[in-house]
Amino acid sequence: MTIPAGPALTVDCVVFDAEDRLLLIRRRNEPFKGHYALPGGFVDIGETVETAARRELKEETSVEAGGLRLIGVYSDPHRDPRGHVVSVAYRIETEGHAPRAGDDAAAAAFVPDWEGLDLAFDHRSIVADAVSRRAPCG
Amino acid sequence: MTIPAGPALTVDCVVFDAEDRLLLIRRRNEPFKGHYALPGGFVDIGETVETAARRELKEETSVEAGGLRLIGVYSDPHRDPRGHVVSVAYRIETEGHAPRAGDDAAAAAFVPDWEGLDLAFDHRSIVADAVSRRAPCG
Repeated sequence: MTIPAGPALTVDCVVFDAEDRLLLIRRRNEPFKGHYALPGGFVDIGETVETAARRELKEETSVEAGGLRLIGVYSDPHRDPRGHVVSVAYRIETEGHAPRAGDDAAAAAFVPDWEGLDLAFDHRSIVADAVSRRAPCG
Repeated sequence: MTIPAGPALTVDCVVFDAEDRLLLIRRRNEPFKGHYALPGGFVDIGETVETAARRELKEETSVEAGGLRLIGVYSDPHRDPRGHVVSVAYRIETEGHAPRAGDDAAAAAFVPDWEGLDLAFDHRSIVADAVSRRAPCG
């Protein structure tokens, strides 16, 4: 059996600093060009999703990933205007790195007032899930 | 930006009955033809991963899915001999359905002594993770 065509696969990274600021980029490209978004991107053939998350975080923000914890899998067929894109989201621990924008990110920073922001894609839902699962018995 | 080529996406279903027997199929096709495996299969474009899990479970075993809980995402590039296939695994609750094989399954049954079986792909790891996360505070 050959492998049938299916959805594309991305990763998204939820990173808070010690002051509960959220690491966000400004998207350099469409869709959602100029919008705030979580760091992330497409998974390459031959890398694990965890490796993809670490790589995309580094490429877009220069931040080095520590521990990863799975938040969820986001697969609504309409969540990305380019087509059906399924994203695996991780909460990622880091240690005091200063963000610096790169790759698909026009800017990258820890943002204090992220709760009122209009984020790209379904990234508000991803962040909400990450926050609600912070408790030790989530 | 267009969507780059990436890994394929599947779902796998971990279903126990009230006697802790594990729902397994015998694979009708290669790879791992004739081996025991978890019910599952490729995610179609346009369906969520949760819908794919319910659909594959129904097609292969005739069992109707109840509640789903995410176990993990399995993405080792070498876990499937056909190519890079990432699988999203769910623990699925059901209510007393008798399995009946269909689609890619040559047989389907709740198996009592599953711990000693040689399962296809990395399905032993998936089941081990499902079992270790059964505790309420997993």
